[in-house]
Amino acid sequence: MTNALNNDTIVAISTPRGLGAIAVIRLSGENAINIVERNFFTKKLRPKKLSDKSANTIHFGIIAHNGVIIDEVLASIFKAPHSFTGQDIVEISCHGSVFIQQQLLQLFILNGCRPADAGEFTLRAFLNQKLDLTQAEAIADLVASNSAVSHQVAMQQMRGGFSSKIKILREHLVNFAALIELELDFSEEDVEFANRNDLKKLIQSIQSIIENLLNSFELGNVIKNGIPVAIVGKPNAGKSTLLNVLLEDERAIVSEIPGTTRDTIEDEIIIDGVLFRFIDTAGIRTTSDVIEQIGVNKAFDAIKKSAIVIYLFDAHELSLGDLNLEVDLIKTHIQSSQLLVVANKIDVEGEVEVKKEFAEFNEPVIYISAKTHKHIEELKNKLVTLFDARTVNATETVVTNVRHANSLRHANNALQKVEEGIEKGIAGDLLALEIRYALDELGNITGQISNENLLETIFSKFCIGK
Amino acid sequence: MTNALNNDTIVAISTPRGLGAIAVIRLSGENAINIVERNFFTKKLRPKKLSDKSANTIHFGIIAHNGVIIDEVLASIFKAPHSFTGQDIVEISCHGSVFIQQQLLQLFILNGCRPADAGEFTLRAFLNQKLDLTQAEAIADLVASNSAVSHQVAMQQMRGGFSSKIKILREHLVNFAALIELELDFSEEDVEFANRNDLKKLIQSIQSIIENLLNSFELGNVIKNGIPVAIVGKPNAGKSTLLNVLLEDERAIVSEIPGTTRDTIEDEIIIDGVLFRFIDTAGIRTTSDVIEQIGVNKAFDAIKKSAIVIYLFDAHELSLGDLNLEVDLIKTHIQSSQLLVVANKIDVEGEVEVKKEFAEFNEPVIYISAKTHKHIEELKNKLVTLFDARTVNATETVVTNVRHANSLRHANNALQKVEEGIEKGIAGDLLALEIRYALDELGNITGQISNENLLETIFSKFCIGK
Repeated sequence: MTNALNNDTIVAISTPRGLGAIAVIRLSGENAINIVERNFFTKKLRPKKLSDKSANTIHFGIIAHNGVIIDEVLASIFKAPHSFTGQDIVEISCHGSVFIQQQLLQLFILNGCRPADAGEFTLRAFLNQKLDLTQAEAIADLVASNSAVSHQVAMQQMRGGFSSKIKILREHLVNFAALIELELDFSEEDVEFANRNDLKKLIQSIQSIIENLLNSFELGNVIKNGIPVAIVGKPNAGKSTLLNVLLEDERAIVSEIPGTTRDTIEDEIIIDGVLFRFIDTAGIRTTSDVIEQIGVNKAFDAIKKSAIVIYLFDAHELSLGDLNLEVDLIKTHIQSSQLLVVANKIDVEGEVEVKKEFAEFNEPVIYISAKTHKHIEELKNKLVTLFDARTVNATETVVTNVRHANSLRHANNALQKVEEGIEKGIAGDLLALEIRYALDELGNITGQISNENLLETIFSKFCIGK
Repeated sequence: MTNALNNDTIVAISTPRGLGAIAVIRLSGENAINIVERNFFTKKLRPKKLSDKSANTIHFGIIAHNGVIIDEVLASIFKAPHSFTGQDIVEISCHGSVFIQQQLLQLFILNGCRPADAGEFTLRAFLNQKLDLTQAEAIADLVASNSAVSHQVAMQQMRGGFSSKIKILREHLVNFAALIELELDFSEEDVEFANRNDLKKLIQSIQSIIENLLNSFELGNVIKNGIPVAIVGKPNAGKSTLLNVLLEDERAIVSEIPGTTRDTIEDEIIIDGVLFRFIDTAGIRTTSDVIEQIGVNKAFDAIKKSAIVIYLFDAHELSLGDLNLEVDLIKTHIQSSQLLVVANKIDVEGEVEVKKEFAEFNEPVIYISAKTHKHIEELKNKLVTLFDARTVNATETVVTNVRHANSLRHANNALQKVEEGIEKGIAGDLLALEIRYALDELGNITGQISNENLLETIFSKFCIGK
C-alpha cells in the first residue's frame, strides 16, 4: 500500500461474478496500454496498435495468446491523469463466459500485471488525489446501497458534500492553531495572538456543527442498515402473516421490471425508498415453560433493539382492558423506539364493531387484515411517516460511517478539553496540543492525514475490481 | 420479432446479476443516443450533449432524473452501421449497485425504451446482417463455454468457420439447381443442361462432407456438454473418494487466481481443457434387496449413457478370477463406451505384490490410491487421451448444435433421394424439388432462409442483454 507499489499495473474483473452477456476486465498502471497491446490483434490476427490511440476511445480487436484466440473484445482507453485512478487504464469488454474472463486475467498476469486487491483501483484514485477518503468510502456505500435514501446519502458523500463540511471546520481551526503556536514561539514575552474569547466562540460553533453531524449518525446508520422494526404480540396474533404480506407486496414491485430481480434478504423490505429490517420475535405471553420464556425474553430484546415496534393483536381475542395491560407491558421494555398499535383480523367480522370496542383506547389504533391485505397500504404509509424521510434531502449531510462518527467524537472530546482549558486559563501549548489532536481526527476523516493501516482497513471492504 | 420492431430502442443490463464494481446497461436503436442525452449532465448538472460526439468515444457524465442524481457514469457511443447490432448503441458503465442498475433501467424505459428480450441484441445483429445464424448461435455457446475445447469450437463457429463451409456446399448445389430448373423451362424439348454424371459426383462429394460434419456432432456434443464418465465398482471400492480427489484437485487449480472462483457443478471437472461429467452410480453387486437392486440397475444405465467407464476395484479384496468375472459382467452392459480398469488402495501395501496378482489380467490396469493421491495424474492423463483432444483443432469444423445436425441430416436425406433419382433416371422436376429442399435445409443453418418461429426458438435461449 505504499506509493512505490502505486505504479505497477493491476488487473481485475470489475463486473459481478457469473454468467452474463458481457464482462469487463480493468487494468490500471503505467503499462496497462502496452500489456493489452502486446496481445491485441486485428480480425486477421495482425498486431493492432493501442498506444497511439487517443484517450477515451474504444477499439475493436482480438485478444489471442500464442495464436489461440481468447475473444473478440472492445478495449476502452483512458489516459493519466484524466482517468478514475489517475493512471492509464484499459477496460476490456469481453463475452461474459467465465472461462474467457479467467483466460484474459491469466494472460494479463502472465504479461506482468498483478491481480488487484479489493478496492485497489479506488485506493489509487485516493493516492493520486482524484478523490478524498470520504468520497472513496462513499463508492463502497453506493455500490452496496439498496434503497433510494441510502443511495442518495452515499451519492451526496461521493460528490464531496461531507468532505467540504469537514474541510471548512478544519480551516477555521487551522487558523487558530497557527496563532496559538505562534504564541509559543514568543512564550517568554507572554503575548496572546489568539484572542481567548474568539477561540472559545469558534470552538463552540465547531462543536455544535460536530454535534449535529453526530446526531445525524443514528439516522445515517438506519439509512444504511435499515430501520429495525419489531413485530410483537401474542401467539396467533398474525405476526408471520403480516410479515409475509409486507414482504410479498414489495417483492412483486421489485420484479415488475425484467432483469432486475435482486437477492432479497428474507426480512428486509423497501417501502417508498426506505429500507426496513424486521426482527423476528416469538409470541409474547406469560409462561412457566422455561424454553418459551427464553423466546419471550428475546422478543423484549428485539423491542430494545428496534426503532419501531408494531404491537399486533387479534381484534377478536382481546378486550380493551387486556389491550391496555398488554401495551403497558410492552412499554416497560421500550427505550427510544416508537410504538404502533395494530389490530389484526378485521376480516372475520365487521370493522365497525371492532372499532367501537377499542375507541376508548388512549392511542391511535391501525385496523388491518393481514389475511385479506386490508389497510396494509395505510400501515406501510405509517411506517414511512415514522421514519420521516423528509429529514434526508440532497443538501443535508448525514454521517453514515462508524469511522467518521468515531473521529468526530474524538475531535469533539478534544475541543471540549480546549474549551475547559480556556476557562481555566491554561497554557497555550496545552491548548495547541488538543487543537492539533482535533485537527488530526478531522483530517483522518477525509484522508488529509492517513496511515497505511487505516487505508488497508477501509479498502479491504471493497469488492475486487473497484 | 418483425423488422418493424427492429428499429425501436431496446435496453437491458448486460453484465451478470448481482453486486460488482461496475455494471453495464446497453441501449440499441435509433433513439439510443437521444434517450441517454436527455438525462445526461455535466458534474454541475448542466445538460451535456452526446448526439454530436464521434463514434467509439467515451464520455463522463451524470445521469439524473428530475434533479435527483442516479449515478456518475461513463457513456460509450457506437454508431450505425458500425456497431454490434448495426444500430446506434450506447453502453452506460455505472456503479455496480443493484439499486442504481434498476433506477437507470427504469429511467430509460420511462424515456421510451423497451426492455430487451433474451438475445435481442444478437437477433438485431443477425437481422442487420452483421452475423449469420450459426455465428449468432456461437455467441451463446461462447458465453456458456467452460473449457478450453468448447471455447475453441464456439470461437471458430463465431468467426464464421462453420458458415463458410455450409455456404460453399450451397453454392455448388445452387449452380446445379439452376441448370436443372432451366431444363424444366425447356421440358418439351427434352434437353439436359445438367450433366447427370457430374451431378451425381457433386452430390456424392457434398454428401461425404455432410457425413463428416455429422460424424463430428457426437464429438461436438460431448465437447459442449462434457464427456460422460461412469465410475462403477463394488461397494467400498473407493468410488466417492476417487471422485472427490478428481474434483478437489481441479478445483484448487481453478481458484489459484483471485477473483476467478466459479460456480462449479459438483460432478464436472475440466482436465487439460476438456470437460468431463461424472455420473453417480451405486455400488454394483448381486443382491436380493429390491431397493438395492434398483441402485445397481441405475449403475448399469449409467454405463450405457457414458462415453468412458471407469471400473474401480479394491486391489486387496478381489482375486484375478473375481476381476475377470466382474469385468465380463460390466462388459455385457457396455455399448460404445471405453473401459478403464483401475485398481485402488495400493497404499495399504506394496504396489509390487498387487501388480503381480493382476499381471495375468488381459487388459491394462491402472494402479492408484485415491486416498494418498498416488498415480491420480496418470489416471487423468489417460482420461484425456481417451477423449483424444487432438481431433479438435482450430482449423477443423465440429458440429455442436442439434439444430445444425438435424438440418444436415435432412439435407443429406434429400441428396440421397436425388442420387437414387439419378440412378433411376427420374424426371428433372422431381430432382429439382429435392435439391431445393436440401438447399433450404442448408440455408436454414446459416439463416439465409429463416422464419420467425425458428428465430424465436434460437434467441430465447440467450441471456438478457446479449
